[in-house]
Amino acid sequence: MSGRLYVIGTGPGNPEQMTPETCRAVSDATEFFGYGPYVDRLELRPDQHCHASDNREELSRAAAALQAASAGAVVCVVSGGDPGVFAMAAAVCEAIDTGPVQWREVELVILPGITAMLAVAARVGAPLGHDFCTISLSDNLKPWEIVERRLEAAARGGFVIALYNPTSKARPWQLAKAFELLQTHLPATTPVIFGRAAGRPDERIVVQELQNADAGLADMATCVIIGSPATKIVARPGMQDIVYTPRFIAG
Amino acid sequence: MSGRLYVIGTGPGNPEQMTPETCRAVSDATEFFGYGPYVDRLELRPDQHCHASDNREELSRAAAALQAASAGAVVCVVSGGDPGVFAMAAAVCEAIDTGPVQWREVELVILPGITAMLAVAARVGAPLGHDFCTISLSDNLKPWEIVERRLEAAARGGFVIALYNPTSKARPWQLAKAFELLQTHLPATTPVIFGRAAGRPDERIVVQELQNADAGLADMATCVIIGSPATKIVARPGMQDIVYTPRFIAG
Repeated sequence: MSGRLYVIGTGPGNPEQMTPETCRAVSDATEFFGYGPYVDRLELRPDQHCHASDNREELSRAAAALQAASAGAVVCVVSGGDPGVFAMAAAVCEAIDTGPVQWREVELVILPGITAMLAVAARVGAPLGHDFCTISLSDNLKPWEIVERRLEAAARGGFVIALYNPTSKARPWQLAKAFELLQTHLPATTPVIFGRAAGRPDERIVVQELQNADAGLADMATCVIIGSPATKIVARPGMQDIVYTPRFIAG
Repeated sequence: MSGRLYVIGTGPGNPEQMTPETCRAVSDATEFFGYGPYVDRLELRPDQHCHASDNREELSRAAAALQAASAGAVVCVVSGGDPGVFAMAAAVCEAIDTGPVQWREVELVILPGITAMLAVAARVGAPLGHDFCTISLSDNLKPWEIVERRLEAAARGGFVIALYNPTSKARPWQLAKAFELLQTHLPATTPVIFGRAAGRPDERIVVQELQNADAGLADMATCVIIGSPATKIVARPGMQDIVYTPRFIAG
């Protein structure tokens, strides 16, 4: 008998941003698989079991979860943010694609969540108010040449750019290199938003101009949004500036 | 005395996908501004007032909401999906940017929501599992030439493409034209997902190949996701196919 596999996202970390359907899935499951800090966001009951693993072991974690569901358990794979954006849903699908045929019979329920760029954008205004691209800056899973090509295509196309995985201990230079490349395509005053831990107590949102953007402000919990040439800053005396991308382009 | 202005998103329409913080904002506000069908998703109390307006009057709606908040009311501007993605947050920021100076003193609280592409992606697997672009196909707010240029940049860059506002009564030909253009850049078998009303009782999810993609399947409530050359379909006997974009690119 095959069980059920939920794939959920906790949102950026504020429990008030987790949807009711996701909370119900958490309540329904007994076996939890995920990166430790994400699973720790859930308040599990004594009858619920946590199988935490390292951040980089996505495929083996997906396989273990599918194995448990295939054996009849109600399983929950936990991502931060939205499970479909640079997170566990793709790893689970890949494991089903390449794994034993009985994994295809598992009831798969993927539930959307608030992904980091939406939470960060909401804190500063509406930088994603017009066409945008979402790019993972990690070159663990693709060659750096592809990252550069996509940054260039995005900047030339007039897209706002949301960067996930901007930096890590093993990838210290990539964000500065991306800023350097974008400086050759975008105005010097293009707003750059560093959105760290949006909605959490340790939130830090900083807006800089591209010409002075300091890659050192980003860490693993940061989503970086780079405006398009149309993106504007609105000063508000005594309050945080607003950053938004107008809905209208004259052409 | 200046009031407060919430800008919220209801998610795709399933109340189970609306976050607790958004529900609290709805409970806190007394004046509601939005497109009728979105405001109708909320169960308002007798002391809460609905100022519904037409879909196309975004800027005047934002101005009316700011006027009420500036006069001291607790106001809620209601979008579907996420308010920051082709929705009311940008219109509110634009109204603040161009309106009377006292509107800048209004306490602005923008709350993220589940945007359509995340809900649609979750229903079919993980098509947004790698880099993607989000494009509004409407040429009401930008020239069609810019839409074409961006579609081309996105396809050439290897991005998955999520299309919002694919069609309307006044814009009947744009989606077919977009498919035609993308067929010159992408493999004939590229998966195209038509995701209508994801998570609602009238949901309809259809997956076709780009070479046969029927633009007539889309309506105003549809988000269309077009895969990259890397996007795969996994057949599951007796169950819906899975569509996903692998996390890994060999280069």
